Amino acid sequence: MTPGSDVVALLRAALGDRIDTTAAALDAARADKSGHAASGTPLAVVNAAAIEDVQTTLRTASATGTPVVTRGAGTGLAGGANAGAGEIALSLRAMDRILEVRPDDLLAVVEPGILNADLNAVLAEHGLWWAPDPASRAISTVGGNIATGAGGLLCAKYGVVRDAVLGVDLVLADGRLLRLGHRTVKGVTGLDLTSLVIGSEGTLGVVVGATLKLRRLVPGDVCTIAATFADVRSAAEGSAAVTASGVQPAIMELMDAASLAAVHALLELDPPTPGAAQLTIQTDGPAAAAEADAIAAVLTDAGGAVSVSHDRDEGERLLVIRRSMHPAMETLGTTLIEDVSVPRSALPAMFDEIARVERVHGVAIPTVAHAGDGNLHPNFIFAGSEVPPEIWDAADDLFRAAIRLGGTLTGEHGIGVLKRRWLADELGQDQWELQRQIARVFDPHGILNPGKVFTP
Amino acid sequence: MTPGSDVVALLRAALGDRIDTTAAALDAARADKSGHAASGTPLAVVNAAAIEDVQTTLRTASATGTPVVTRGAGTGLAGGANAGAGEIALSLRAMDRILEVRPDDLLAVVEPGILNADLNAVLAEHGLWWAPDPASRAISTVGGNIATGAGGLLCAKYGVVRDAVLGVDLVLADGRLLRLGHRTVKGVTGLDLTSLVIGSEGTLGVVVGATLKLRRLVPGDVCTIAATFADVRSAAEGSAAVTASGVQPAIMELMDAASLAAVHALLELDPPTPGAAQLTIQTDGPAAAAEADAIAAVLTDAGGAVSVSHDRDEGERLLVIRRSMHPAMETLGTTLIEDVSVPRSALPAMFDEIARVERVHGVAIPTVAHAGDGNLHPNFIFAGSEVPPEIWDAADDLFRAAIRLGGTLTGEHGIGVLKRRWLADELGQDQWELQRQIARVFDPHGILNPGKVFTP
Ligand SMILES: Cc1cc2nc3c(=O)[nH]c(=O)nc-3n(C[C@H](O)[C@H](O)[C@H](O)COP(=O)(O)OP(=O)(O)OC[C@H]3O[C@@H](n4cnc5c(N)ncnc54)[C@H](O)[C@@H]3O)c2cc1C
Ligand SMILES: Cc1cc2nc3c(=O)[nH]c(=O)nc-3n(C[C@H](O)[C@H](O)[C@H](O)COP(=O)(O)OP(=O)(O)OC[C@H]3O[C@@H](n4cnc5c(N)ncnc54)[C@H](O)[C@@H]3O)c2cc1C
Repeated sequence: MTPGSDVVALLRAALGDRIDTTAAALDAARADKSGHAASGTPLAVVNAAAIEDVQTTLRTASATGTPVVTRGAGTGLAGGANAGAGEIALSLRAMDRILEVRPDDLLAVVEPGILNADLNAVLAEHGLWWAPDPASRAISTVGGNIATGAGGLLCAKYGVVRDAVLGVDLVLADGRLLRLGHRTVKGVTGLDLTSLVIGSEGTLGVVVGATLKLRRLVPGDVCTIAATFADVRSAAEGSAAVTASGVQPAIMELMDAASLAAVHALLELDPPTPGAAQLTIQTDGPAAAAEADAIAAVLTDAGGAVSVSHDRDEGERLLVIRRSMHPAMETLGTTLIEDVSVPRSALPAMFDEIARVERVHGVAIPTVAHAGDGNLHPNFIFAGSEVPPEIWDAADDLFRAAIRLGGTLTGEHGIGVLKRRWLADELGQDQWELQRQIARVFDPHGILNPGKVFTP
Repeated sequence: MTPGSDVVALLRAALGDRIDTTAAALDAARADKSGHAASGTPLAVVNAAAIEDVQTTLRTASATGTPVVTRGAGTGLAGGANAGAGEIALSLRAMDRILEVRPDDLLAVVEPGILNADLNAVLAEHGLWWAPDPASRAISTVGGNIATGAGGLLCAKYGVVRDAVLGVDLVLADGRLLRLGHRTVKGVTGLDLTSLVIGSEGTLGVVVGATLKLRRLVPGDVCTIAATFADVRSAAEGSAAVTASGVQPAIMELMDAASLAAVHALLELDPPTPGAAQLTIQTDGPAAAAEADAIAAVLTDAGGAVSVSHDRDEGERLLVIRRSMHPAMETLGTTLIEDVSVPRSALPAMFDEIARVERVHGVAIPTVAHAGDGNLHPNFIFAGSEVPPEIWDAADDLFRAAIRLGGTLTGEHGIGVLKRRWLADELGQDQWELQRQIARVFDPHGILNPGKVFTP
């Protein structure tokens, strides 16, 4: 059988109307939310409804040598889910059942296609939650969260996906099903393949089920602190001072002047003070009020104009400004959202580097940061659907600055296609090659997400 | 060059007096604390003082096809560090420097040979700690803790080693040095090889450095709750009720009647009530007292005779009973310490299974448990230095019971040599083979800890 030739016919014979080849479906599968789209159009979209559908698809793909691009909800920001010419797009979105919720063991077993927010709505009825909270939680899948190793606003205090998964069920390229990990909170039986799958961006296998580690909903208050600083460097120093003080906020978000201006315009609020940057911080749990006061004192000392609210709804209103960043950027043009992460003490220095890159390359880079964990999202805005070379030059300069500061290319969005050419720079050639060989153990013929993460 | 032939001469030429071939050193390297010793005597012990020594050793071993067994402090309980005939024992114990402590970034960079407790003594001066606290923390190394994925008493609340390592420096079998992971709290650049190395028991490479994720020392009180129950099943139900109540203890340890009797005898305390089992629980942090009261109420409802102490020293005295378990068992004979872990709700059922195994096989199995995370240590006592077949039969029965209950073979001690024949039973043949192939990517000729974890 030759690639592509009759693979669609074979799939249709096996899976019937789960195969979608309408132009709209094929076109939608070309893109995620990165602003990047695959070149060409995929052969078909498979809407898997059960593990067996995934196995059938991969067996057929293996037999015909056809590449498979796994998709959750397609909200990724690295191009990892984009399917192009000659490829099959395998969507897990329809596998969205919750199979088990165990409040006594603080675990849930789910299918991968459930949206993060839908899962958490059900868990809340049991007084539970799954902590990873990407800003996209209402629109992204648990399987996609696992495959990207997603983070979120609350993760400085409550951890990222890596901290919240006990096991995954994985279909390999040849269609075999493996059950990795365990239902117990502790376990060191053999190599930790669950961790290896987290963040593997569809290159090792297809996640068809997951055993999630849950938390109990945090009782008590939520307090929100808003602090305005004259410039972004002072705001970054303020956030570093909070970290150094030892008080642990649940959320600590930083927005620079350009971000604030864009969001205020979108939400039709009064324009913010020119040049000013803002920290929005939340504390929660039994000591929320005392912690908010302590943080307010630190920020006042650091030169911030500080207000504290003890009202949950008022806090949510303040956070809406942060959560509106993505739509606000979209009003300005196509956005390349970067995702570098640096040690927390290096945040002020990283903002200096961003200012330098803006100057040297003559571009504006509105930036927000999960300041509690040193993860920044610098936004590059451009016209059209392809990132122009001069924007890549500026991004390249920014990546190298982050790595120099002890940082990393991507804190939570992943490598996908957009950052693959920098991967070896950060890992070193030896480690890059070793990682590729490990991927080959799972997928000897390289049919899973080829060209993603590792350059061909 | 043929294996063994001149490898010692080559090493001595390169590393001089870091090569120890005295009978005492060779004999000590044959055993860890599992009660098991390798057959035969290793060729030499290399006491590495620097990364280059490790690289030289592995290059020489690769060139001569000589197996290398990496050792920390040799306190392991699975036989993983035991070096036998034809093997080189590579000790990291002398590489014990702290290279960096960063209170602002909550990280430390260390060499692998430092003892866990020695590191924590230095960190305490900065108001910091590295949370993993195996009961062996005074005698085991950070590198060994990482290589085994160690747990401890506090890990239900504060996490295990897997939660507390940002990066490791790894020397591969061929002597190349890789730097895995990052200094940032978040990072998803490529595959998570740091997690893969955690718990890999010396089969993937030699950990020569680590970037550790620290916590601030927890301010506030420590309260200790001691609760006595008529039998072990009631105590297990009590601990499950605490977990289900949603209050998070820092420590929750369970001891059965046989364990209590042995420890009371060792410490020359009055004998405990026959048949009675005990829960020892600590709460900490700002809400410690309120949480202790809540837990006391749950345990009283569950039928326990409960006392609460607000005195740190009194609490330490109560925990000494738990910490004396290992020496108490040693007074009874050679001990095979098992390490199964089950979902927390299954603890009572697991104690039923232990009672069944005791009955069916006619053996006594004194058992303690980290009840807060469902990890049990059933102790099999025997005479002599080799585990007799009838003890293995009983252990086999116990392992299968744990797996039936949704559990795992080993919660924190690892597979080593002692549990390798059950590994494929738990993982399944496909996953076992995949794991072996991954190990081969790191170590193509299989010179690192051969025969450990994976059977040859
Ligand atoms: C407005 C907005 C805000 C965002 N905020 C955050 C944030 O705060 N934090 C954050 O981390 N990310 C954020 N993201 C990025 C994105 O939402 C996350 O990466 C998310 O985890 C992707 O989930 P998805 O279901 O959309 O996956 P997709 O985009 O469909 O896929 C992402 C990657 O995972 C792979 N994949 C998906 N499902 C599976 C599976 N079942 N098995 C194997 N591989 C699979 C794909 O091949 C691809 O490589 C945001 C995105 C948007 C648009
Ligand atoms: C009294 C007592 C109590 C204990 N309590 C606990 C407990 O509560 N929790 C727990 O988890 N364990 C416990 N243990 C077991 C043991 O202490 C741990 O497994 C510990 O992590 C081993 O550290 P070590 O330095 O002694 O390693 P070793 O025993 O020397 O080695 C253990 C394994 O790690 C490998 N290894 C060691 N160093 C490196 C390195 N630098 N690079 C690569 N591989 C390496 C070895 O090859 C071997 O496979 C206890 C042991 C005793 C004797």
